[in-house]
Amino acid sequence: MSKGKIYVVGIGPGNYENMTLRAIKALEESDCIAGYTVYCDLVRDKFPDKEYIQTPMMGEEKRVELALEAASNGKIVSIICSGDPGVYGMAGLALSKVEALPDMEVEVIPGVSAAFSGAALLGAPLIHDFSVISLSDRLTPMELIEKRLRLAAQGDMAIVLYNPQSKSRSGYLAKAYEVLAEYIEPERVCGIAWNIGRQGQRYKIFRFSNLKDIDADMFSTVFIGNSRSREILGRMVTSRGYDSEK
Amino acid sequence: MSKGKIYVVGIGPGNYENMTLRAIKALEESDCIAGYTVYCDLVRDKFPDKEYIQTPMMGEEKRVELALEAASNGKIVSIICSGDPGVYGMAGLALSKVEALPDMEVEVIPGVSAAFSGAALLGAPLIHDFSVISLSDRLTPMELIEKRLRLAAQGDMAIVLYNPQSKSRSGYLAKAYEVLAEYIEPERVCGIAWNIGRQGQRYKIFRFSNLKDIDADMFSTVFIGNSRSREILGRMVTSRGYDSEK
Repeated sequence: MSKGKIYVVGIGPGNYENMTLRAIKALEESDCIAGYTVYCDLVRDKFPDKEYIQTPMMGEEKRVELALEAASNGKIVSIICSGDPGVYGMAGLALSKVEALPDMEVEVIPGVSAAFSGAALLGAPLIHDFSVISLSDRLTPMELIEKRLRLAAQGDMAIVLYNPQSKSRSGYLAKAYEVLAEYIEPERVCGIAWNIGRQGQRYKIFRFSNLKDIDADMFSTVFIGNSRSREILGRMVTSRGYDSEK
Repeated sequence: MSKGKIYVVGIGPGNYENMTLRAIKALEESDCIAGYTVYCDLVRDKFPDKEYIQTPMMGEEKRVELALEAASNGKIVSIICSGDPGVYGMAGLALSKVEALPDMEVEVIPGVSAAFSGAALLGAPLIHDFSVISLSDRLTPMELIEKRLRLAAQGDMAIVLYNPQSKSRSGYLAKAYEVLAEYIEPERVCGIAWNIGRQGQRYKIFRFSNLKDIDADMFSTVFIGNSRSREILGRMVTSRGYDSEK
């Protein structure tokens, strides 16, 4: 029996064009593609002849177990993640579950995470130091999330919010607003990108005072500027401090 | 005369395989490629017939001006950046210089930044909330850098250090160590990746107490784990908090 292998692959924001050549090659080489149903649907067109292991949201543990089982049976399996597999993705879970299978080869293939595909759409909000914080309290206590928001704002770092809210977690952005409003002035430039690289892609630049009212969903990413973020010709741009930017 | 255009393109860590299809198409379409000499050398093999505008390190303002001049003369110009153009890259400078040329089209094409290509190599150090901080004080006062380090560590965020040190900035990692040692225990898992995606690629997992002695250069990226980072089979893995990771 041939030796199986696991790739944990970042497919980028969703469209084929934003995948790396390395990610495409890994999927081509794979017998089997494992992923959240929505992500499988994003790649099926280009890779129709693969065996698919699909599990719903929150089925991550099961998904990795099924992928490992297939790989243990000699298959090459790609566990796909939107964006980058190492940012709120499956790379950590895959590597920790492999602890019991030390002979299993696992290769993590990076991709373009929503922080960067969204930033490119908006302009250049993350050009200097920044913090990436998820508002999901499914696996993290809300107190810790709020503490991180506070500290990032105190450090005048630009902030990217992943998982700003969802149907089951409504009002989380308003909660983040309350926490951050102590440190951030109402006129601070902010942005949001929806459905990056997918049908319905759009973005909006707004002021911090409107953060609580922004229509964010689980397919959106929110950007809060630092004190040097400006709006330039409809884009959100943070200064690095070059002479001409002063 | 045809209308010029600017692409600001992330070429990823350096090898062709880690470029996105979108970045490759932009370079194919371009008449002219502008970049730091080292990055131009990384792509010249695959795009030999382009006109190259090369400027040395610290020549960023000049580089963007030359690129804009060429685009104003009707050329399609790609300003290339290693990694992602929106993370310590040229996207901000390009967008701010275009303020005086509102008809010039500028498209930012995201790429895989060293935080993620390095993380993939090391394992999954950034799987949850994290801060990205540059140790370069060329454009940022050292007091602000130190403040950000302190705040990120207080928030128990994983930390990625860009530009950890260079020949002209030696001892900066030791300085960061002094600042962080107040918050981070000596046994904390850390990692470093050198020359990601290029000749001489390697990585090392180490403990925080060794941070001050690590041989970092300007082609390396340093990862400081959070309190839930572990070493698993020679990889650096941060837990997201799944049941099986506890």
